[in-house]
Amino acid sequence: MQAIVINRFGAPDVFELCDLPKPQAISGNIAIKVHATSVNPVDCKIRQGKLAAITADFPAVLHGDVSGVVESVGEGVSEFKVGDEVYACAGGVKGLGGALSEYMLADARLVAHKPKSLDLYQAAALPLVSITAWEALIERAQVSQGQQVLVHGVTGGVSHIAIQLAKWAGATVFATCSSEQKAEAAKRLGADHCIFYKDMEVQDYVAEYTDNLGFDVIFDTVGGENIAKCFQAAALNGTVISVSTRSQQDLSPMHAKGLTLHVVFMLIPMLHNIGRERHGAILRQVADLVDENKLKPLIDEQKFKIADIAQAHKHLESGAAIGKVIVTM
Amino acid sequence: MQAIVINRFGAPDVFELCDLPKPQAISGNIAIKVHATSVNPVDCKIRQGKLAAITADFPAVLHGDVSGVVESVGEGVSEFKVGDEVYACAGGVKGLGGALSEYMLADARLVAHKPKSLDLYQAAALPLVSITAWEALIERAQVSQGQQVLVHGVTGGVSHIAIQLAKWAGATVFATCSSEQKAEAAKRLGADHCIFYKDMEVQDYVAEYTDNLGFDVIFDTVGGENIAKCFQAAALNGTVISVSTRSQQDLSPMHAKGLTLHVVFMLIPMLHNIGRERHGAILRQVADLVDENKLKPLIDEQKFKIADIAQAHKHLESGAAIGKVIVTM
Repeated sequence: MQAIVINRFGAPDVFELCDLPKPQAISGNIAIKVHATSVNPVDCKIRQGKLAAITADFPAVLHGDVSGVVESVGEGVSEFKVGDEVYACAGGVKGLGGALSEYMLADARLVAHKPKSLDLYQAAALPLVSITAWEALIERAQVSQGQQVLVHGVTGGVSHIAIQLAKWAGATVFATCSSEQKAEAAKRLGADHCIFYKDMEVQDYVAEYTDNLGFDVIFDTVGGENIAKCFQAAALNGTVISVSTRSQQDLSPMHAKGLTLHVVFMLIPMLHNIGRERHGAILRQVADLVDENKLKPLIDEQKFKIADIAQAHKHLESGAAIGKVIVTM
Repeated sequence: MQAIVINRFGAPDVFELCDLPKPQAISGNIAIKVHATSVNPVDCKIRQGKLAAITADFPAVLHGDVSGVVESVGEGVSEFKVGDEVYACAGGVKGLGGALSEYMLADARLVAHKPKSLDLYQAAALPLVSITAWEALIERAQVSQGQQVLVHGVTGGVSHIAIQLAKWAGATVFATCSSEQKAEAAKRLGADHCIFYKDMEVQDYVAEYTDNLGFDVIFDTVGGENIAKCFQAAALNGTVISVSTRSQQDLSPMHAKGLTLHVVFMLIPMLHNIGRERHGAILRQVADLVDENKLKPLIDEQKFKIADIAQAHKHLESGAAIGKVIVTM
């Protein structure tokens, strides 16, 4: 079968077309005929060599998000049959297959039937970002009715799902926006208030929107200096969640306010073969929410074929994408 | 009434005897005839001037922990009557009274009836440390049956309660010890295993006691470099709790393992007048646990009168105390 691989780390032009053996479904796994995948920032970091420790051996097939049709079913798998339309974040890292290929082998515990109301193109946008936002807001922070939740960013992959999940959980949702266009997108996703963070200091929006009390839950996808801003914006005994926390931080503000910091790294079940059934279960719940019209993917307007994978990565890295970047076979 | 105050920050000899007006119980408060108080590390830090922002105005009456007899009851307080034996952590910080005096005014929401099975001397050991350990392990980390909990330290105030609460919650409890004497104390408190941390690297005790999987919950009372050791010893998606986190930390290990960090600062309800009824409620549950013989204070053998407050502070600061240091009026 045809696949796109990398044999070295580098710029988007490191992707190469290559012929690999078609995978056969082994016990506990299914083989998926890939319809589409989406580009997540972690895929770019892996390609760049920033996450060498978790990268598959060369030639490495990248990308975890996949939507497609079940091609074959391994022993012990009862939930799926040949022809089912499924979605998952099932690899792109050490020890697992990748979605940049005609067929992808996937641990059935990581997979769910796609939402009925989405086609396979749209479904490829959801897995990694939905699982991340679900783990962050629903499982870890346990966002509840009436809480004030601040989401940093709007049209980023994880952020746009986080806004919708926080709203579904009953929170009042605040989103930081950099433009009127993004504020409009945030409103359509359900955000109650948009904060133009480039025009306001943290203390000013904490004063204006929380009467100086701070936000109950803050969701960070930026990392670095933004973590300190999250601590500053948090309420007493508040919760900060970050999906990007590879940095030095002064924890004194956490002490003064008695904060909780949850760091979410959604690849753990894939990398360590632990709790994988949780990911399939989350995707089943996400599919239900989508079909109940409570959650929808935001998809960038540019369409890419797998032969244009380099352009797809460049587009995500440029920061110009509004929503998820999808790549079809 | 007589009180011990500080008029400047410094060594233990800054304490001075002074005459202050006897407090009258105002609405929502009770006045307690103080029987005893205990020395907590935060009291020493306040005396040293390390926490000037939360220190009461000079002349400042220090110490939050108090046990004593209700002397008068303010309007709106129905749970207590004159003569009741009570315990609380009710002040020692900006805006509140302090226990180093004959009488202490206390917000009734912070107070509970003392355990029936302890005398007032023993009861003074419990409030601050029990509330801290309860908030950490029961409320925040929600320690559950079968988890592996590592407690740093044994005979420290918070640690010795943490060991017992984690055991009560159904965990297997590991305590880091520096001597055979402390290991014996840990066993008496209910610890399942003692780890002689001076003789073992973190990776070695993680290998020996958790089969390299790491601990589910780690309770730190040390701060500084010990936080990095906690991250190293934690399981994937594990939880670290710290009560001492005023430092710079590299959060990369939190990312790689998807950890949660809870920072517990138990003075928040006192300093910010928020959620004070939680503290009274915790102390009622603690009293029940004590009376059911599931929790006991560890009290240092040296006894101090209030005139010897400087010696009591010196004793705690020397590190020689085994358990709580109690000071009686």
